[in-house]
Amino acid sequence: MEPLDFRPATADDLPALVGLLADDALGAARESLDDLAPYASAYRDIEEDPHQQLLVAEREGTVVGTLQLTVIPGLSHRGSARAQIEAVRIAASERGTGLGTQMIDWAVDESRRQGCRIVQLTSDASRTDAHRFYERLGFKATHVGFKLTL
Amino acid sequence: MEPLDFRPATADDLPALVGLLADDALGAARESLDDLAPYASAYRDIEEDPHQQLLVAEREGTVVGTLQLTVIPGLSHRGSARAQIEAVRIAASERGTGLGTQMIDWAVDESRRQGCRIVQLTSDASRTDAHRFYERLGFKATHVGFKLTL
Repeated sequence: MEPLDFRPATADDLPALVGLLADDALGAARESLDDLAPYASAYRDIEEDPHQQLLVAEREGTVVGTLQLTVIPGLSHRGSARAQIEAVRIAASERGTGLGTQMIDWAVDESRRQGCRIVQLTSDASRTDAHRFYERLGFKATHVGFKLTL
Repeated sequence: MEPLDFRPATADDLPALVGLLADDALGAARESLDDLAPYASAYRDIEEDPHQQLLVAEREGTVVGTLQLTVIPGLSHRGSARAQIEAVRIAASERGTGLGTQMIDWAVDESRRQGCRIVQLTSDASRTDAHRFYERLGFKATHVGFKLTL
């Protein structure tokens, strides 16, 4: 396979990133490719926040994966910053290639580089394959994730 | 009871806030009141980040509760920002007074005010009383929370 390139997202990646978000069992129902304006606005918010990193994985000029990494300072655990991983998506064509592992490894390395002591994420209870994946990478399913939609 | 005051934390609150973090079944093992320097450093990082709010609940001049609210911009859910609640602590003397409900109500109102569409938090799997509390407030336990300690 052609080599992967990991790089920060740019505004030009938006259509491909929204496509990845929508190409997913849960995402299909909640994303909309018809109007990119709300995504473009959110992209600007991400770009302007120095604690956000939006990663793009590219192969042969095609966006094949993404995740967002957020650094959250905090008092607990003796003042430990934590890193949070959100919006992990892998192109269907890339599943089983190890791309997910490489992306999470990148996020963990970057979290360590930024001085974080905890890396955390939540995964929908229905995504049991994802749960096994994170456990293989050393994550522990110690918490219950609560959501409230406004 | 005397009325509550909800206000942003200041550096002067640090000893009281660390005391609250340590006065907890899980916190007792991982916090240390002997050296506040790492907490002071973390406090500065929180204060400098416009997406963080560290709430103090005070009654009669005594700090009786705290939580941290983080706004995270994101592409998913049509570019919805989400708010995350971390480090919720209530003084033992205040449990059962409704303070927790008032604090979470504050966080939800503030999340809405900042345009967030989702409020999220994780709770250690052992904190079953907390789970019932969040469910009574309308949160859904839809996710599994994974953590990796670095």
